[in-house]
Amino acid sequence: MHSKLLFFCLLIPSTLSSPPNIIIMLMDDMGWGDVGVNGNWAKETPNIDKMAAEGMLFMDFYTANPLCSPSRAALMTGRLPIRNGFYSTNAHARNAYTPQTLVNGIHEYEELLPKLLKQADYKSKIIGKWHLGHRRQFLPCNRGFDEFFGSGNCHFGPFDDEKTPNIPVYKNDKMVGRYYTNFTIFKGTGESNISQIFLAEGLSFIETQSVSKNPFFLYWTPDATHDPNYASPMFHGKSIRGRYGDAVMEMDYCVGKILEKLKELKIEQNTFVFFTSDNGAATYRRRDGGDNGPFLCGKETTYEGGMREPGIAWWPGSIPAGTITHQLGNIMDLFTTSLTLAGVKPPQDRIIDGIDLSPVLLDQRAPIIDRPIWYYRGNEMMAVRVGAYKAHYWMWTEFGNDPLKFTFCRGQYIQNVTVHDQINNTEQPILFNVNRDPGEKYIVSPKSREYKTAMAIIDPIVKAHKEALEPGVPSLNYCDVAVQNWAPPGCEELNYCLPVPESNPKLCVWDH
Amino acid sequence: MHSKLLFFCLLIPSTLSSPPNIIIMLMDDMGWGDVGVNGNWAKETPNIDKMAAEGMLFMDFYTANPLCSPSRAALMTGRLPIRNGFYSTNAHARNAYTPQTLVNGIHEYEELLPKLLKQADYKSKIIGKWHLGHRRQFLPCNRGFDEFFGSGNCHFGPFDDEKTPNIPVYKNDKMVGRYYTNFTIFKGTGESNISQIFLAEGLSFIETQSVSKNPFFLYWTPDATHDPNYASPMFHGKSIRGRYGDAVMEMDYCVGKILEKLKELKIEQNTFVFFTSDNGAATYRRRDGGDNGPFLCGKETTYEGGMREPGIAWWPGSIPAGTITHQLGNIMDLFTTSLTLAGVKPPQDRIIDGIDLSPVLLDQRAPIIDRPIWYYRGNEMMAVRVGAYKAHYWMWTEFGNDPLKFTFCRGQYIQNVTVHDQINNTEQPILFNVNRDPGEKYIVSPKSREYKTAMAIIDPIVKAHKEALEPGVPSLNYCDVAVQNWAPPGCEELNYCLPVPESNPKLCVWDH
Ligand SMILES: [Ca+2]
Ligand SMILES: [Ca+2]
Repeated sequence: MHSKLLFFCLLIPSTLSSPPNIIIMLMDDMGWGDVGVNGNWAKETPNIDKMAAEGMLFMDFYTANPLCSPSRAALMTGRLPIRNGFYSTNAHARNAYTPQTLVNGIHEYEELLPKLLKQADYKSKIIGKWHLGHRRQFLPCNRGFDEFFGSGNCHFGPFDDEKTPNIPVYKNDKMVGRYYTNFTIFKGTGESNISQIFLAEGLSFIETQSVSKNPFFLYWTPDATHDPNYASPMFHGKSIRGRYGDAVMEMDYCVGKILEKLKELKIEQNTFVFFTSDNGAATYRRRDGGDNGPFLCGKETTYEGGMREPGIAWWPGSIPAGTITHQLGNIMDLFTTSLTLAGVKPPQDRIIDGIDLSPVLLDQRAPIIDRPIWYYRGNEMMAVRVGAYKAHYWMWTEFGNDPLKFTFCRGQYIQNVTVHDQINNTEQPILFNVNRDPGEKYIVSPKSREYKTAMAIIDPIVKAHKEALEPGVPSLNYCDVAVQNWAPPGCEELNYCLPVPESNPKLCVWDH
Repeated sequence: MHSKLLFFCLLIPSTLSSPPNIIIMLMDDMGWGDVGVNGNWAKETPNIDKMAAEGMLFMDFYTANPLCSPSRAALMTGRLPIRNGFYSTNAHARNAYTPQTLVNGIHEYEELLPKLLKQADYKSKIIGKWHLGHRRQFLPCNRGFDEFFGSGNCHFGPFDDEKTPNIPVYKNDKMVGRYYTNFTIFKGTGESNISQIFLAEGLSFIETQSVSKNPFFLYWTPDATHDPNYASPMFHGKSIRGRYGDAVMEMDYCVGKILEKLKELKIEQNTFVFFTSDNGAATYRRRDGGDNGPFLCGKETTYEGGMREPGIAWWPGSIPAGTITHQLGNIMDLFTTSLTLAGVKPPQDRIIDGIDLSPVLLDQRAPIIDRPIWYYRGNEMMAVRVGAYKAHYWMWTEFGNDPLKFTFCRGQYIQNVTVHDQINNTEQPILFNVNRDPGEKYIVSPKSREYKTAMAIIDPIVKAHKEALEPGVPSLNYCDVAVQNWAPPGCEELNYCLPVPESNPKLCVWDH
């Protein structure tokens, strides 16, 4: 009895009476090195840096996949995309996402975070990019969210409402307009006030819920830092690093406003906030893209630049201020940690990959939790990190025969590492010590004692993982022009339904 | 009269009665990305980060040369090595320094900072590595310093007191022992308490001077972060990134202790402190070296990784806390700024390259001062930065024919940029926008309007620089085994004089 109570106190301090509100701020394609506190030379994020100073900074935080959709599916389910189905078997180790031709979305079988939080009476809202399926049955309000403002797809085109419908923007379960028409992004200049709308939606939700007796869950996930970047006039042209930096500055402003609102409403001591990004900076955007700091390559790859993310936890009074942790964290942990803080048991009938980070968050003297980080690309486990060591079982930068064309790893060349063909190293994985060598430049010799010692630890972990693995049915295999956003829910009222072409389902093509 | 007074007030606030003490903390081979506040993932520098939070952080601070000796000569003289003589003409564009075979040192003609500060009654001490000539006439106490604890040379070997004497350690003008014998560094483990001795020397000097009516100048320049790294038992084995990180942790501890001492003595409001490093991280040390963050290559090169340095200014009450600046700064500016703060006029009979940063330091609303950054390698101007643009006139990573051997740029490959031969681009310089592209990965097309606009600004600046340039007599051309530290001043008292071999002067060989 006594020990049980103690356990409960440790997990949910100062919230015995009610579980905390939860806010997950998920950036789009923002790199580890894009925030000031992680060293960005442009220092455009005073509010995010302040958030870190008031909270806990994760130096070793990861996404579950180097691409938007699977990463977001992992966050919502606490499970690797290989389990929750957000991958493709169309070819080996292919990155796949949810364009508007995609037939499927997140499986009904999957239990999503907002739905589970209902057990503790949470009111949930998603603002921004959903990306887990844009057809009616997959939309947020049909998968556990009470409210939705944003879109089922990316904001990027090309769209013309003829061959391809412009992307609808939803308020809850009905569209209220489309990107580039009703929600304008000026193509030439990248000006748009969409982020300010997302901010206002967030602030309004927080205000409304602050007077409710129910806790809230806000999943705030704007996409301004995704190519093509946009920013409102207040930030347009302000960054010394161009349009991408403008978007970062606006995101930082929004983060500041949201935390300020919590303080203003005096609910900051009862709100757990986490800031991260869905994948590494899109290095293929060249000098218009984000920054992965000292890490190798970027988005789409399973090198550190593709999957190491900014990670900041904030909860004044509960998470000690100004702390830094080397706990290996993963976006999937936000699922498990949120449920734990809410007092809800994660699903017991399936493997959950996310771990509960609350012991580390709430006590800076708590020991580091030992756990692996898996790096998947589509249906293939490319690499794993255990402690300081990362073993690459497969490697691939991207397709292409030109040895000087390293689109995802521009300017970086490491022999046998930044490879253009899919290289199978499963017989003898390529090993790095990513603490001493975060840039994955210096292969640990397979002949060394260091290699043998590390692999003796890693091998059984990989073996156990593979043995227990039951891949989910892949959701990202089939595409069909007929499923595009021709006639989304609500289009009738707006008189904005487009004629639906004949169905022509086929295998989606995933190039890399 | 009125305007003159105002001018004085602006420059030396709260110190009308007496000029401030000055402390320059110069690290050895520490990279831009090695400090937490610049994003290091290991976050080993809480005290340096705190210093930045209490002071002003320079994001665009540079050294004057990518190697120890010329960088330090530039700091002491406020002048580029090409002017003060700390370069070699033995071959084109060669890096050169002061090994113990070097015949010369800093020219008598050069006016050094501690000597000039005498005009304002400063008492000066250097602790650590001098590196501007180890023969009697070049030693610190013969060149303006009142006190000296440290060495004229690097601590690295090989030495055996037979073919090559072990490096003497001085107290003022006499040796008190030698490295590896009297001042032990355990070769196998890298354990040594030398940094703690340097710290104690610094703290003791500060304490003694704090009760004097004279201001002091402390040049604190330990070399623990230079290969081979060493750390005292308190830090040995503590870093997750190995021996180099251990040394960083100890440096951070020392920085903290020095600032703490100033506060304890209540002289922090009358002490200007600047923290930086003499050149970029030694990337040739592979995974045992430091970190240059997102910048290209490292020590010995004129890419950003070789010359962009951490830069933190601290002066509570005068420098606004928690500020960040994009002012282009240079190690030579510490010469001019220190003199200005001391109320001493810089020499008027020669070109001084360092500018007075005090307007920017003392007023965060002050406009950025427009000034170029010169990147020299030996006798050649390799590149220049003006605003956001950096133009490479010459490029060279290092010698070597193996296209996969990029010792100074390991893992980095940019066509026509990371070149193995000396490439002459003077006809059409290779241009980067280092704000949008800090990694120097994306060459601005010479056909673009951007190129033409930038070069129209840069060209006349370079032309004026070259026209005004009168290279100093090179100090780093001649070597002689007879000038090694066989019989340094004070060796008689210690009975530690070694027999001097026959003089055999010849041109030094500088490989890169
Ligand atoms: Ca993304
Ligand atoms: Ca150095």
